[in-house]
Amino acid sequence: MLSIKHININSFNENIVYLHKDCDTYKLDEIKGLTKVEIHGGAVPVYAFLEIVEDDGILKTNEIGLNNEAFSKVNLPEGANITISMAGPPASASVLQRKISGNILSSNEYSMVMKDIVAGRYSNMDIASFLVASGSFMTSSEVLSLTESLVGDEIIRWDEENIVVDHHCLGGIPGNKTDIIITAIVAAYGLPIPKTAARSLTSCAGVADTFSVLANVDMSESKLKKMIKECRGAIVDYNSLPIASASKIVSAVEKSLGITQQQHIVSSILAIKLAAGVTHLVLDIPVGPTSRIKTTNEAMRIRKMVEYIGDMLSLEIDAVITDGSEPVGNGVGAILEARDVMKILRNKEDAPQDLLEKSLFLAGRILEFDPKLRGGQGYHVAKEILTSGRALESLNKIIYAQGKAPQAQLGHLTRDIVSSRSGIVESIDNYQINKIGVMAGASQYPGAGLDLLKKVGDLVEPGETIYRIHSLTSNDFAYANSLADVNSGYEIVSKR
Amino acid sequence: MLSIKHININSFNENIVYLHKDCDTYKLDEIKGLTKVEIHGGAVPVYAFLEIVEDDGILKTNEIGLNNEAFSKVNLPEGANITISMAGPPASASVLQRKISGNILSSNEYSMVMKDIVAGRYSNMDIASFLVASGSFMTSSEVLSLTESLVGDEIIRWDEENIVVDHHCLGGIPGNKTDIIITAIVAAYGLPIPKTAARSLTSCAGVADTFSVLANVDMSESKLKKMIKECRGAIVDYNSLPIASASKIVSAVEKSLGITQQQHIVSSILAIKLAAGVTHLVLDIPVGPTSRIKTTNEAMRIRKMVEYIGDMLSLEIDAVITDGSEPVGNGVGAILEARDVMKILRNKEDAPQDLLEKSLFLAGRILEFDPKLRGGQGYHVAKEILTSGRALESLNKIIYAQGKAPQAQLGHLTRDIVSSRSGIVESIDNYQINKIGVMAGASQYPGAGLDLLKKVGDLVEPGETIYRIHSLTSNDFAYANSLADVNSGYEIVSKR
Repeated sequence: MLSIKHININSFNENIVYLHKDCDTYKLDEIKGLTKVEIHGGAVPVYAFLEIVEDDGILKTNEIGLNNEAFSKVNLPEGANITISMAGPPASASVLQRKISGNILSSNEYSMVMKDIVAGRYSNMDIASFLVASGSFMTSSEVLSLTESLVGDEIIRWDEENIVVDHHCLGGIPGNKTDIIITAIVAAYGLPIPKTAARSLTSCAGVADTFSVLANVDMSESKLKKMIKECRGAIVDYNSLPIASASKIVSAVEKSLGITQQQHIVSSILAIKLAAGVTHLVLDIPVGPTSRIKTTNEAMRIRKMVEYIGDMLSLEIDAVITDGSEPVGNGVGAILEARDVMKILRNKEDAPQDLLEKSLFLAGRILEFDPKLRGGQGYHVAKEILTSGRALESLNKIIYAQGKAPQAQLGHLTRDIVSSRSGIVESIDNYQINKIGVMAGASQYPGAGLDLLKKVGDLVEPGETIYRIHSLTSNDFAYANSLADVNSGYEIVSKR
Repeated sequence: MLSIKHININSFNENIVYLHKDCDTYKLDEIKGLTKVEIHGGAVPVYAFLEIVEDDGILKTNEIGLNNEAFSKVNLPEGANITISMAGPPASASVLQRKISGNILSSNEYSMVMKDIVAGRYSNMDIASFLVASGSFMTSSEVLSLTESLVGDEIIRWDEENIVVDHHCLGGIPGNKTDIIITAIVAAYGLPIPKTAARSLTSCAGVADTFSVLANVDMSESKLKKMIKECRGAIVDYNSLPIASASKIVSAVEKSLGITQQQHIVSSILAIKLAAGVTHLVLDIPVGPTSRIKTTNEAMRIRKMVEYIGDMLSLEIDAVITDGSEPVGNGVGAILEARDVMKILRNKEDAPQDLLEKSLFLAGRILEFDPKLRGGQGYHVAKEILTSGRALESLNKIIYAQGKAPQAQLGHLTRDIVSSRSGIVESIDNYQINKIGVMAGASQYPGAGLDLLKKVGDLVEPGETIYRIHSLTSNDFAYANSLADVNSGYEIVSKR
């Protein structure tokens, strides 16, 4: 028996057990590699990786150290006595091996894997293996199984609502924060829209990042319910809600690995919507040569897949294929995107028209989920709500209710990337723009990013600014500049 | 600037940096997930994962903690000032993504990945992703590239030898420790055999585990050279030699994941042999329904692949397809296997004949690498060396020179698994036997394992023991017993 000591270290989802090299109870000489152990003594066994301490100041030979993650899961006070054993493989270990070997898994097998992940029986390494193995090939029915397993048991119920709507974009397009404008319009119309959003995975800013420039995005389930009751809308970081635990753990690993796999993204989005109690979803599938989805055929396959999953899990999905050939809006990065959004809601003349039109189009599709609205009227109703100022009023109410965010600082280190020639912007490379933005610090700092002053089809003169880089640190600034110097992401051709 | 504090924690190949939550220099509020950082100030940048400490006893706000791995790599004294930055992705990150997406990689790309792995720029999670992604599909030329990249720059040279021989088995067969007997015979004959062996990955015992029951298996390169000069043979845990760093890191991750992928195993074995300076290799490819390699066709594909790689990298390979239908020898687990080996070398009557014959056959193939030996004479010469006692003498000399191991203890918790019927042993399931042995504690304790008293073709009577389980802890013993009760691994049919 060893006595618990809380080692106040945050290891980001990895449970770690520390034992002293000369541990009283266990012989550690023979441990030569990563070892998974099972901690006994709490309500349920907790799985953890073993690390070895050789410093009496940190740990004594009769103690067992638990990092923050392990300490909170074991849920016993310091000084309590516990034991450990070598962890046998989790129940789903053979399933993981089967997937690594390229087999098709059953619904029950996906559910076994997710249960083990949520129970902490998988290391980040195991999860990465599962992601890579399943990412290389999944049937539609496997994506369905994965989605179901990601939903799990924690589902938000909306007993007072007939329909609960939401919108999500499959992503890969810089800027493109239609979500906030759509939420404002739909909430003003009166349909309940608990918009679940995420932080950036590999992009400059997720919807949760951008909206957090305006308001607090973390809330409890009861707060979300109050929001919908009072404001009809909310924009919430789904990580703060007690739903889709497996999806959160898996996403954290994906973020760290820097991988984004189409079928996992689709599964994860649909699982979060289902867990949030959404009944009607507009799914935006942008297509373009530098978008995540490159061809209309590919987009169509995804549409068929989500329609199938939606039908099987009783989620009405309107999957809309949109133009993903260039960034949407001018701002790329949280503060600059939030500025675009507010310009549109305030009906400013210099508001980005592409973002405006796309938002109205998608909001219209959502409004048409309302049985009372005549077919084909959605766009016009959405436009009326926006131009009348009701959307702005609605968003302000949401911001106030969620808690207004303190003013954030736009990156003061700026550089104008200028055109060397006269011509027309022929194309903008989404990947390169995202990469320069990330290098400028956008995925870390809301104030970093790019302000795109020219878009496809715009005329440019020699020396005219095509976009402006904003950074907060000189390191980020230098990286972004050197990347932009190699390839600005813009193709400019002579006037025809 | 932060001041280095050595946090004496061993994290098994993962570099970890600890910062205080209220760190003076870096703002840590926004860090919500696993974050990779680059440590500057040492000779080269060191990559590490960030963990956050909230305990002034462990770390102060002006300090940066480095775990054992990071501290030794940064190689600066405590109190030295260093900085960190967010780590950009390693040079080969896009290569990893390409492999995850199913592409074929070039030789240069494999080499980039391995360089980044050795430089510590990959986390265990990244390595796992690479393994799973490349394991699902590799061309022969990719396996060649991977092998070359695993060899790296650290190669042992044998300037005084014309040929340097070795033997290796592709594994998956319990028992089967021909290697030690072969080394004894070949060394007695006089061919230099620096037998590189490994600890168990997923089996009950690796060759290094079994031989470590008899002698110390860790040695430096100069010790190995002295061994070969004086004894003509040595059995060394390759992990103790300064070769094939990438292979060691990759194997540690494979061990922790519990995965074994054919092409990686082949690459890794050939890379270690090449790095050890071996010129002539006998490769044993056992085939059987419960062996790792199931069919002769599959074995033939592997033979062609290794011949191709051998030819390209100037390693003469004699790939031999052998019978892998049942365990080889009686003992499964280090001590029991070592007992079998010593019985054979001592020419005991009750020595396991299958292990004896297989060892002579393979040793004969190696002896025939000697240009001076007439074709077809290898087996007979090997047999003469064994029966004359010269092999025993040779092994005793090796054991003495490597350092005799202290007496180890055979597991005192034993149970006889008995036959419930009269009949003939029709088959023995290698997987099940290995699993029961591992559960009995064999991969942890040399004294745990199974003693197979009956083999395929043996007659059994009701109540007669077919094998005996040995464990050292009651937990292991209970696991192994319950597993054996469900499925003993033996199929016994009525006499014909």
